[in-house]
Parts: sequence; C-alpha cells; structure tokens
Amino acid sequence: MIKFEEAFEIVQNAANRTLKTERVHFTDSMGRILAEDIFSDINMPPFDKSAMDGFACRKQDINNELEMIEVLQAGSIPKNKVGENQCIKIMTGAIIPEGADCVLMVEYTEETPDGKVRYTKRSTNSNICYFAEDIKKGGLVLTKGIEIKPQHIAVMASVGAVLPLVSMKPRIGIISTGDELVEPEYIPASSQIRNSNGYQLIAQVVRAGVLPHYYGITEDTREATFNVITKALNECDIVLLTGGVSMGAFDFVPEIMIETGVDIKFRSIAVQPGKPTIFGTFQENTFIFGLPGNPVSSYTQFELLVRPLISKLMNNCHLPKSIKIPMGVEYTRRKSERKSFIPITISPDGKVYPVEYHGSAHIHSYVFADGIVSIEIGKEKLEIGELVDVRQI
Amino acid sequence: MIKFEEAFEIVQNAANRTLKTERVHFTDSMGRILAEDIFSDINMPPFDKSAMDGFACRKQDINNELEMIEVLQAGSIPKNKVGENQCIKIMTGAIIPEGADCVLMVEYTEETPDGKVRYTKRSTNSNICYFAEDIKKGGLVLTKGIEIKPQHIAVMASVGAVLPLVSMKPRIGIISTGDELVEPEYIPASSQIRNSNGYQLIAQVVRAGVLPHYYGITEDTREATFNVITKALNECDIVLLTGGVSMGAFDFVPEIMIETGVDIKFRSIAVQPGKPTIFGTFQENTFIFGLPGNPVSSYTQFELLVRPLISKLMNNCHLPKSIKIPMGVEYTRRKSERKSFIPITISPDGKVYPVEYHGSAHIHSYVFADGIVSIEIGKEKLEIGELVDVRQI
Repeated sequence: MIKFEEAFEIVQNAANRTLKTERVHFTDSMGRILAEDIFSDINMPPFDKSAMDGFACRKQDINNELEMIEVLQAGSIPKNKVGENQCIKIMTGAIIPEGADCVLMVEYTEETPDGKVRYTKRSTNSNICYFAEDIKKGGLVLTKGIEIKPQHIAVMASVGAVLPLVSMKPRIGIISTGDELVEPEYIPASSQIRNSNGYQLIAQVVRAGVLPHYYGITEDTREATFNVITKALNECDIVLLTGGVSMGAFDFVPEIMIETGVDIKFRSIAVQPGKPTIFGTFQENTFIFGLPGNPVSSYTQFELLVRPLISKLMNNCHLPKSIKIPMGVEYTRRKSERKSFIPITISPDGKVYPVEYHGSAHIHSYVFADGIVSIEIGKEKLEIGELVDVRQI
Repeated sequence: MIKFEEAFEIVQNAANRTLKTERVHFTDSMGRILAEDIFSDINMPPFDKSAMDGFACRKQDINNELEMIEVLQAGSIPKNKVGENQCIKIMTGAIIPEGADCVLMVEYTEETPDGKVRYTKRSTNSNICYFAEDIKKGGLVLTKGIEIKPQHIAVMASVGAVLPLVSMKPRIGIISTGDELVEPEYIPASSQIRNSNGYQLIAQVVRAGVLPHYYGITEDTREATFNVITKALNECDIVLLTGGVSMGAFDFVPEIMIETGVDIKFRSIAVQPGKPTIFGTFQENTFIFGLPGNPVSSYTQFELLVRPLISKLMNNCHLPKSIKIPMGVEYTRRKSERKSFIPITISPDGKVYPVEYHGSAHIHSYVFADGIVSIEIGKEKLEIGELVDVRQI
C-alpha cells in the first residue's frame, strides 16, 4: 500500500507521451486543450481610440469654450486636425483626431448660447485607449496547454485564429464487472445491486470533455474478463474497470490484467475511500485502472487520479485547482492511518461543512456536495477556522 | 440608470413561467435541470451488509477463539446462524448472517494452530452497513431543480430512474450588429474590427448547456435590424444582440426593439463594465438583451444577467454560487458611482489578486482570470485580507 502522493506521481509519470493534435474550427474548440501558442496578427487597438462618447480636444483647452469643427463616427477617418480651442464630437471607438490628447465625457459638457462646447468639470482623464496598448502585432495572446473557455474563443476570433491546434481526446473504455450487477432498468433481486458506478464513470468522463466507450457488464468468469480487457486495451487509451462491491467479483482481476500484458504499478493506496485502486500500463501508451466497487470510492479516485491523467495526456497545463477555505465546524475522525477525502458543502458565508457521509457505499452523500476536502495521514482533526484545500466538484 | 440589483430583479421577475419539460434517458441527462423529485424504489442497503472483508461474529465473543462455520460471498444467502464462539468468513457486501452483530476485519485476525480464528485487537466497530441506513424505499433521493452531475446519474441508476423528467432548454439567438465588424477569418481594414463578441456569446451559451442559433452580422440599417430582431423574437426564447463598439451602430436599436413590439424594461445599469445594457420582453415569454459592444462588458453581463435568466427559465434551483475569499493585495478605484466587476485570479494559497485590466475593451484581461469580484457603489477600496465574493468563471 502506497501513499496517495506516490500513487499520483506514478500515474502522472506513466503518461510520458502526450496525445496527437488536430486542427478544429475555433467555434468547436470549447473545452479542448490548446496545443499551440497563438499570436496576434494585428495591433489592439489598431489606433488611438476614444474610450467615451464626447469631445476630443487639447488638455490645455478644457477650461475654455470650444468650437466644434467635426462629428466623427466609429469606423470613419477624421478630416480635420484639432487646434487651439477646437474640438471634434467623437463616438466611442472612433479614431482620436490629430492634435487632440483627451476626450471630454459628453455627460460633463454643455452647449453655450452661441453654440460652443463648455466642459463643466475642472480636470479630465485622457479617455483614450492607446494604439497597441492591449496587444502588439505578433504578441502572444494565448499559450499552449490552456483549456479553451469562452473568453479564449473571443481572443481567437479577435486575432483571426480560426483553426487552432488542439490535443486529440483520449479514447476511454469503461468495463463493469460483477455478477451481482444489473443494469438500472431492472429491479434487483435481493442479492443484486444496480450498476450505478459504470454510469457515474460514463458521466464523469463526459464531464471531462471526452466521449466514453461502455463495454457493458462483463460475466464473472476469467475468460470473459480476459477477453473484454484485451479488447479494451487495444481500442482505448485509458481503460476503467469498475467492480461490484463483492471481493469475489474482483478477486482475479489483477491476475488477468497481468495475463493480458499489463504491468501493474500499484494495487492499493493508503486512502479512504478508494484503498483497493489498481493501476497498470500496457505497451507504454495505454493505462488501466481497477476502480473500487463502492460508488463514492470510484467517484473520488476518478476525480483524483484518472482526471489528472486525462489532463496530462492532453498536455493541459492547468490541473484542477484547489481553493483554500476555512472550516465552519470542527471535524474529527477516529483513525488516521490513511489519507481521507470527505464530501463537503461551502456555505454562503464561505465556510466548509462536511456533509452526512456513512462511508464509501453511501452514494447519496455526494448529492449536495460542492467539493472534496482531504485530511492527511496522522491528522485526526480539522479545527474550526482551519484553512483546508477544497477540490470543487 | 438603475442599480445592478434592481436590474437583476427585473430580469428574474420577468421570467414568470418556466420552460416545458421532457423525458430523456438518464445517460443523456448530464448538465440538464431535473424537473421532478426522484424517489427510491428500493431500500439501500437492501439488508444488513458487511462493510469489510472479515469474520462475522457476536461482539461478546471477540476475545475468544472462534470456530469458522461457513464462507460467505457477496450475492449469496447465509446457510447458518452464528452462535457462541462461532464465526462466518464474510466478504464485503455480503449479507450479515443471523446471530452476528459485528465483522472482525481480516487484517486483525490470525489462524490458531488448531484452525480457529483469533482476533488480535481488543475492540471492534460493528463494520455493518445497516438495512436502509442510506435510503429507505420511497425516500426522496433527488430534488427538482438540481443541475444533473455524475453523482446524480449514479443515484438515478441506483434507483432505476432511467427516464428522468428534465426542463427543456431555451432557444437562444445571437445577433451581431455593426458595419465595422468583420468575421474572424477576414483581416480587418483600419476602421474595422473582428467580430469576437458574437463568438464569445456563442461559447458562453454552449457552456451554459444550450445550443445557440447565430444570426450572423446584421447590416447597419433600420430595415435589416428590424427584420432580424423580428425573426429572432419569433424563433427564440432569449435573443442576444451584441453591437460593435460604435454608438452609431447601436443608436437605433432600442427604437427598433420597440417597433418590433418589445417592452423595454431598462436601458442602462450603474455598473462598470456593462453600463449600456438593454433588456426587454416580448409577448410575455420572450426576452431580449442588447449587450454592450465591448467584449469584457458583454462577457460580464452575460454571466451576471443572462445566465441566471437561463437558469430561472429552466427552474434551476441553484444560481451560480459565489465564494468568499480574502484579498491578497489592496485594490483601489478612482470612481465609485457604479458597481464594478473586475477580473481576478485565485493564488495557490487562496487569495484574490486582480489581473491587469485596461477596461471594457481589454479582451485579454480575462484570459487568465479565475473569477469576477464585485465592488459596491460608494466603495473605493478593497483592503488586504478583506473577504470578497468571487464568482468563479
């Protein structure tokens, strides 16, 4: 049994090659991982630009009555130069005319009886967005490895990066094992349980932005298990096995993994929940997890180990972030020989409260959870007000 | 000009009917809003169940040598009752046999020379998951209005809710206006800018789980604007107009909205960025926003006003949550007559740092932002250590 941090390192280091890349239309790139740096092909702003609707003039003239010599729309070229005690009525986004070094906000101006413009305040900002102040032509605007969000789509649009290079998605296979499992549409007999883990994993994979392949519930025999693992290893980049809760169902899985050619890297982790988590590699580029049969364990180990592997394979530079938030209550545990992960909610006033949690089979404990908090080995208590790392889910 | 809070209330109250509902397969329900309460059709656990691999026995006998009378797999029915100084070897998930009231963890047991089982510790937990302790048959497991996540899919699977009722998604139309706009694949002439807002909005709508309809860039004439707004109002539940930065381009939009039959509820909000945000309703069930032409303004007002409207229409009971986090630096602003929203990052040690931000045209300010912090009207400074509300993005 190894520590969680070691398990995490083993999984991350196993992913020593990243997936291939492909070009997609930028409008289809939401949630993908950018696989190239993107540079601007233009200056932004492309000229000194008015930040306001108002009157462009010389700063030294703002306390004088000004003669309006032109009206300037955005998208038009100024015809005149602004001289002493002159101004040009200007719209937001229009080019600052030569001679002017500020824009008086229209709200603080008035017309004099003889049709001149008078500023009603004593001082002004320049109210100019200067040439290339946001970005210079050739400047780096987006870096390799980011997960593409709406604001990045806007940046791509603004620099004409219409076919960005992104990482391909891993193929992920999900195999459910255990003769006691029945699919959700059936009513389980007394010794049976419905397959909830398989579908939870499918949804977790979908949330990670990847389309999973579900291999169904495999019959609890060595032959069927060998065949489905072999098939999945050859078709996928990552294979997830999820068992029923019975040991029986999972007994021979590590042995069969070895028979299929898997190099098992670890068989259990000093964590709660998720101790019986198996990880192995196949022909260097394929990864297999035997996830615990309990739904909370399976959920947690997917988020903590599998999802960061998916990110690493796609060369995503941002692993899911934790946030430090204070505990709203004291929390104690009786045993501290494993690192534990507990479901929590975050209250409106920004404090962490553990939710009712009966252990790794307690599928409902995560229904209202906002995140997961970890408690280190040897630590029995989280104090009120103590800052804890919250992994939001 | 109204306060942000009033604008928010007006938009939320305008949505006085929720969208229709539909049944989808639970495997297609990720991210949808549940439109019914879901109850369990079974007890969980369905029997007193072993939480461990070990030996089921009577607590009063744990310091005696025990005779093993049976081996019990998960999924099997116990044949024997456990009597005095007897035990049954039991796997995780198996039914607790009659007579037993605890399970000794296998790790803390040893075999005696004459084949009996001896416990190596002095006390034990029961290590039993009791009948129906997680959920009773008929018990409420998921409530109407939640956004469906992987853990909820697991719960649906476990109770056989394979065709949950969910809210239909609103139809959202996006119209770009402004003759100075060119689509991203073109190189803009000096007075032109690329249409980044339209595509940012499309991506924001996609991130909100809805497929948008894009009406393209509309010619800057009253007739074309009237026609596209009329068409969009008749085809969509929510229409988003996004202008170029020029006032010219947007000048006649409110007037044309009124001509199409829109009842304008407000034309500007005391916020920075996003002051020139227009909102109106059409025939009670259709909503239209004129969003500001600057990309940061448009982005922010979509997240702060449009997204909560989408949630309200789908009867989502959880509006996006803010989290309270302390400032890592002091932040001051010169003017405080509007509520302002600034892009921030959250540092690994859990503090808030504003990112470089030149104002509402500064499209790159949000590239590395983790969230938005608001500063109330009249407030000029955020102190170091002050708890601020972070809306994560």
